[in-house]
Amino acid sequence: MVLNSGLTMIPTSTAHLRVRYSETDKMGVVYNSNYLIWFEVGRVELMRELGHSYREMEEDGFMLPIAEVTCRFKASAAYDDRICIHTSIHKLRRSLIQFIYEIFREPDGKLLATGTSSHFVTDLDAQRKPLSDKYMLPFTRFMAAAPSNARR
Amino acid sequence: MVLNSGLTMIPTSTAHLRVRYSETDKMGVVYNSNYLIWFEVGRVELMRELGHSYREMEEDGFMLPIAEVTCRFKASAAYDDRICIHTSIHKLRRSLIQFIYEIFREPDGKLLATGTSSHFVTDLDAQRKPLSDKYMLPFTRFMAAAPSNARR
Amino acid sequence: MVLNSGLTMIPTSTAHLRVRYSETDKMGVVYNSNYLIWFEVGRVELMRELGHSYREMEEDGFMLPIAEVTCRFKASAAYDDRICIHTSIHKLRRSLIQFIYEIFREPDGKLLATGTSSHFVTDLDAQRKPLSDKYMLPFTRFMAAAPSNARR
Amino acid sequence: MVLNSGLTMIPTSTAHLRVRYSETDKMGVVYNSNYLIWFEVGRVELMRELGHSYREMEEDGFMLPIAEVTCRFKASAAYDDRICIHTSIHKLRRSLIQFIYEIFREPDGKLLATGTSSHFVTDLDAQRKPLSDKYMLPFTRFMAAAPSNARR
Repeated sequence: MVLNSGLTMIPTSTAHLRVRYSETDKMGVVYNSNYLIWFEVGRVELMRELGHSYREMEEDGFMLPIAEVTCRFKASAAYDDRICIHTSIHKLRRSLIQFIYEIFREPDGKLLATGTSSHFVTDLDAQRKPLSDKYMLPFTRFMAAAPSNARR
Repeated sequence: MVLNSGLTMIPTSTAHLRVRYSETDKMGVVYNSNYLIWFEVGRVELMRELGHSYREMEEDGFMLPIAEVTCRFKASAAYDDRICIHTSIHKLRRSLIQFIYEIFREPDGKLLATGTSSHFVTDLDAQRKPLSDKYMLPFTRFMAAAPSNARR
Repeated sequence: MVLNSGLTMIPTSTAHLRVRYSETDKMGVVYNSNYLIWFEVGRVELMRELGHSYREMEEDGFMLPIAEVTCRFKASAAYDDRICIHTSIHKLRRSLIQFIYEIFREPDGKLLATGTSSHFVTDLDAQRKPLSDKYMLPFTRFMAAAPSNARR
Repeated sequence: MVLNSGLTMIPTSTAHLRVRYSETDKMGVVYNSNYLIWFEVGRVELMRELGHSYREMEEDGFMLPIAEVTCRFKASAAYDDRICIHTSIHKLRRSLIQFIYEIFREPDGKLLATGTSSHFVTDLDAQRKPLSDKYMLPFTRFMAAAPSNARR
């Protein structure tokens, strides 16, 4: 399913969802802003897989406000489609994390969109604050899991 | 425009908006949950007209979490339609406020939906707290502005 | 988990989801209009369980535009909460279907909201059209599965 | 107000809106995906100013499905803030249009976000179709209204 995915050679988290009627627009396909919400679903599941949810991160006094987002739309998603979100980490610093995303339609594996989002690391007052080891280490291990020929 | 409106005989606030593409669904009309957001636009404008915005109310330590909402859909709203929201107060206590709404399409004045929302008065921790005079008195005056033949 | 549920004695479909960050508001809890979207998730899963998805229903020339919705909010949902939606059918005619919903937080089974939505049966031009047996019969069998002491 | 705006030297359309409670998240600020909806508000108002609304464009058999979007977040928007969206056209071909956006908070003119969106020109079946003169000419005139030192 992911043979056409540029993320296949790097560590990737996978999340699943189904397109809601409310996410479609009068063109009959998913409205563009919903992809940013799906990106959120993807990075939240990645963090949960690494052992510490984003909810826990906020309870520990860290937030990840968004600094920049990009999305390229390749094909449209239809109502009731099952969607698969591949999320990986592209850049990792204690002050900034960039996630990359690929969104597929299941079961045919059609690539619908790719994107990135960059997030500052801040305290709960939105002031910059370096990420603690509790979160930094799992992220680092996740990125290191890439095979040697990965990260182009 | 409001001859078909049950609110015409009672004090009413009016808000305006235009249907966004993102608010439509694949039926080609506005998705139902957006009417609840429009209700919010209506009651927020009513409060602003009475001299104290809902933002100010929160700064003063009051919140109005929703307890119940109803909406009857009479006709559908289309993309780019100009919409008019009539909002009034149906019940007023220091502990609970019920707003009523009528949503019209402009310029033909077609009634699209009617509804109600009931809100508890709480502090910022969502604990019940009686509404202070600063807000209670303008609400009371607003309701008292009804002509003698108005419905309660 | 559903001991406090009024739907436990009648046939019920269950859907699951997790609260998205985008669904919260500045009160820190889920914004009210999202419950209507969750109702949609509930009734769509009920239809899928009965063997014919709502997508298939539209492909067969039927739509279920909403006529009325009600929602009572009992407790608030927080970010990342796992949510369980119980959906049943309260009224069934070929021209109109009323669904009832109960929304719970998992794993503690706290009841967060109850609601109803009534839907006209129409063709794809939104003209009233009686529901065909293909869809009517599974709905009827679903309702008949109630034990004798179930409420109608 | 727009002294800090890179768009000030090129033809720009201006749209206004007010932040809705539903657009905020538990960080207390506007959730990121709403900026894409605001971009839509901006480009729709630009088209209306040029004499032909996007609704009319669809009635004439053209759609502008999104191909790519970018957004940089500079500062956060709060509930009830008045927002100003500056929209211009960065690239114009009969097959693809790229809009650029700047989002400001009023009345202090703080720049909140900048972004771009690229749109294919298609027929109502989402097949590529060159834009007709009816729409191409006003877009061209709009871009030509720039002073000689504008468009870098």
